[in-house]
Amino acid sequence: MPATALRREPPDQSLLAALRQLLDDRLSTAAAICAQHGRDESYHQAHAPDAVAFARSTEEVAAIVELCALHKTPVVAFGAGTSLEGQVAALKGGVSIDMTQMNRVLQVHAEDLDATVEAGVTRKQLNEYLRDTGLFFPIDPGADASLGGMAATRASGTNAVRYGTMRENVLSLTVVLADGRIIRTARRARKSAAGYDLTRLFVGSEGTLGVITELTVRLYGIPEAVSAAVCAFPTLEDAVDTVILTIQSGVPVARIELLDEAQMEAINKFSKLDHRVAPTLFFEFHGSPAGVAEQSETVKSIAADYGGVDFRWATTAEERSKLWQARHDAYYAALALRPGSKGWATDVCVPISRLAECIRETKQDLAQSPIPSALVGHVGDGNFHLVFMIDPNQPQEISEASRLNDRMVARALAMEGTCTGEHGVGYGKMSFLVAEHGEALSVMRTIKRALDPDNILNPGKIVSV
Amino acid sequence: MPATALRREPPDQSLLAALRQLLDDRLSTAAAICAQHGRDESYHQAHAPDAVAFARSTEEVAAIVELCALHKTPVVAFGAGTSLEGQVAALKGGVSIDMTQMNRVLQVHAEDLDATVEAGVTRKQLNEYLRDTGLFFPIDPGADASLGGMAATRASGTNAVRYGTMRENVLSLTVVLADGRIIRTARRARKSAAGYDLTRLFVGSEGTLGVITELTVRLYGIPEAVSAAVCAFPTLEDAVDTVILTIQSGVPVARIELLDEAQMEAINKFSKLDHRVAPTLFFEFHGSPAGVAEQSETVKSIAADYGGVDFRWATTAEERSKLWQARHDAYYAALALRPGSKGWATDVCVPISRLAECIRETKQDLAQSPIPSALVGHVGDGNFHLVFMIDPNQPQEISEASRLNDRMVARALAMEGTCTGEHGVGYGKMSFLVAEHGEALSVMRTIKRALDPDNILNPGKIVSV
Repeated sequence: MPATALRREPPDQSLLAALRQLLDDRLSTAAAICAQHGRDESYHQAHAPDAVAFARSTEEVAAIVELCALHKTPVVAFGAGTSLEGQVAALKGGVSIDMTQMNRVLQVHAEDLDATVEAGVTRKQLNEYLRDTGLFFPIDPGADASLGGMAATRASGTNAVRYGTMRENVLSLTVVLADGRIIRTARRARKSAAGYDLTRLFVGSEGTLGVITELTVRLYGIPEAVSAAVCAFPTLEDAVDTVILTIQSGVPVARIELLDEAQMEAINKFSKLDHRVAPTLFFEFHGSPAGVAEQSETVKSIAADYGGVDFRWATTAEERSKLWQARHDAYYAALALRPGSKGWATDVCVPISRLAECIRETKQDLAQSPIPSALVGHVGDGNFHLVFMIDPNQPQEISEASRLNDRMVARALAMEGTCTGEHGVGYGKMSFLVAEHGEALSVMRTIKRALDPDNILNPGKIVSV
Repeated sequence: MPATALRREPPDQSLLAALRQLLDDRLSTAAAICAQHGRDESYHQAHAPDAVAFARSTEEVAAIVELCALHKTPVVAFGAGTSLEGQVAALKGGVSIDMTQMNRVLQVHAEDLDATVEAGVTRKQLNEYLRDTGLFFPIDPGADASLGGMAATRASGTNAVRYGTMRENVLSLTVVLADGRIIRTARRARKSAAGYDLTRLFVGSEGTLGVITELTVRLYGIPEAVSAAVCAFPTLEDAVDTVILTIQSGVPVARIELLDEAQMEAINKFSKLDHRVAPTLFFEFHGSPAGVAEQSETVKSIAADYGGVDFRWATTAEERSKLWQARHDAYYAALALRPGSKGWATDVCVPISRLAECIRETKQDLAQSPIPSALVGHVGDGNFHLVFMIDPNQPQEISEASRLNDRMVARALAMEGTCTGEHGVGYGKMSFLVAEHGEALSVMRTIKRALDPDNILNPGKIVSV
């Protein structure tokens, strides 16, 4: 963790005074508040900011950034704090801008299938708001993340195999630049060829190029029919081969999730379920009743060819909700297998043809390690996750997890994959970008320098300058 | 056309000598060759380069760009020359890099549904190559454009409503930077959260940030069943309302194209067809046989509610091919209505809820003008095109077309739309970007300056620096 070596400047009192004048009691320097804002859900070391500014509008964010720019003080945007690679850590101190009070749904254009929201709106909040419209926002990374944070980290999750990631589902962003200027990256048209794709540049930039304050996202009609199923397989490779053939057959499956036997044992215990303890796929199908029936039959037949047995259907909303809650609780369930442990989560993504091989080699590696781990994956995209259940008081466990992670990333890169499919870079995965991007990393650095010459926007993340 | 005012430097003889040493007879300064490379399919004034370099590899492109950088000489990439906003015009002279000899399909990963090709491969060539694999590349802008050019202009076309545009279908690019360095923007994984989205930054950058030399694109399984249909409507608004309801109902229609009565008259004459001369929709449905039947029934029922009559089906490959060839020939068919005329094509894109209004007001405007025009649209995306059939020898017709275009763009922008859905900016639409992007245009300029400090990459396009 080279980040700990970064020098920190003490906070400038005149900056704090100016911010207090702007925000009154919505500026906090309380130790507990600062500590909370330097920490995400990852194993990475927390770094508290010097102050937390609770913003209520784009204009306020612009004023805060402008003041910080004047004092060359770092600015880190903070949404729900659910990032997994240390994205919110204030490595060089400075001001954390808390977006949670920017939580208004500004406009829903049902006829255009889009909504414009403030960055602090969470995905569950948006879907709750949409309840009577027949529409929904599909991107679901598990955590109830803020939409601004999800855009900033290019989040995806279980539905991405059908609906895409934040990359495909953000139409436009309002962004505060490093000097406090406000831009809108695009209009509401579904497509445009009018200049550089600034929307996609800011999606996934983790607050290092600008602070996202509002976003327009795509919505979808709630499918007429939804069906979910669970199916256990003799081996992990049988499960993965089922996924590969399903995708190649063009079945528009909405979700297709892999859980290994350790993870199944964990969720059975944690969520009091009685699934077979074996490599298992969770499926969800969306469409017309006839379409869902057709998809289900096709997949069932593919699964049967790979020894998939015990197809259990969840057709009522309640059964489905229980099923996916168990999937979303996988992380906590895994931790509960080793009381007192802390989770060390990581993810990679490879071309789907290499997925079985990548998972097999990774599992062989894990089998030789004393650290317990569980594997889950959004396997329709070639994306899978590991969580190590480590004892945080044992430094050798941290270094062992780190070694296994290094090896998994190297394996994924050798298979034309990426060091992270959806968790992002933060400061946890910066060291892999040289191997992944080569010379292209220098282009990222050039862009960072051009848009944030004083390096005040979330410094020490993605690219070092 | 402010571009004509640009100063041109004479070509540097030592540069030409160095290029000739590199390329031998693949460097041409012949007037006819240069003239051909300064011209696209648009009405914009052609600007010939001083020389044309026929490249055969990424390394050669890199060497050419490096030499040009040394001499601060402009570089314009040239694919099939089918752009529509003057993208290939060498406004400041320099070297056109002809990519047509870089036309190898490098790799097809059928199991991953992707292919890597050199930038000069055309979409038809790729689909021909894929014929025995059961896969296809769906993006179809009409012209048999090169895939490099399609990526550079962020092309889309008739299939975009279902399959997306080049934005969604390029996985990775090999790009030569302004100083001759070569980068690859991403790996082959379907998704990644590993840093800035350079792929999307170069897609749509029209050769102003780098020269695309290779690309990895997504492929799709050829649908088990395909069906197409033509349906005439009492009014243009009835047709557009049918589109809106179809999209809102979540029907995964593959193509949904609007042609106005002038355009229908034109294609009847040009393609010897006997369609009703009325606002008409062309549909195509992809899926399983049952799925296609279900989609067709849903759309037929929606159309009937809006007076859609005379549903004519094209189910054989031959009938469909005839139908879509007629659609693709719409531009030439429109020109044939006025012998000796030249086409003046433009496009805008608006949120679909504003589409009927935007088209209605535009048609009212056109009705009061003496210049004949025809309207076609990829209306499922909110995108439509106008072609004016102008007499190129009548300057007042050019200025009248220009006035109508200005008004249409202003109308689209007022409706939260964009000045171009798919033709791109080139030098034809630069003047609208201020109104469309405001302060965001300065971010585009900052990026351009950072990545091309000497402004040698397709200067005078998208942003002026």
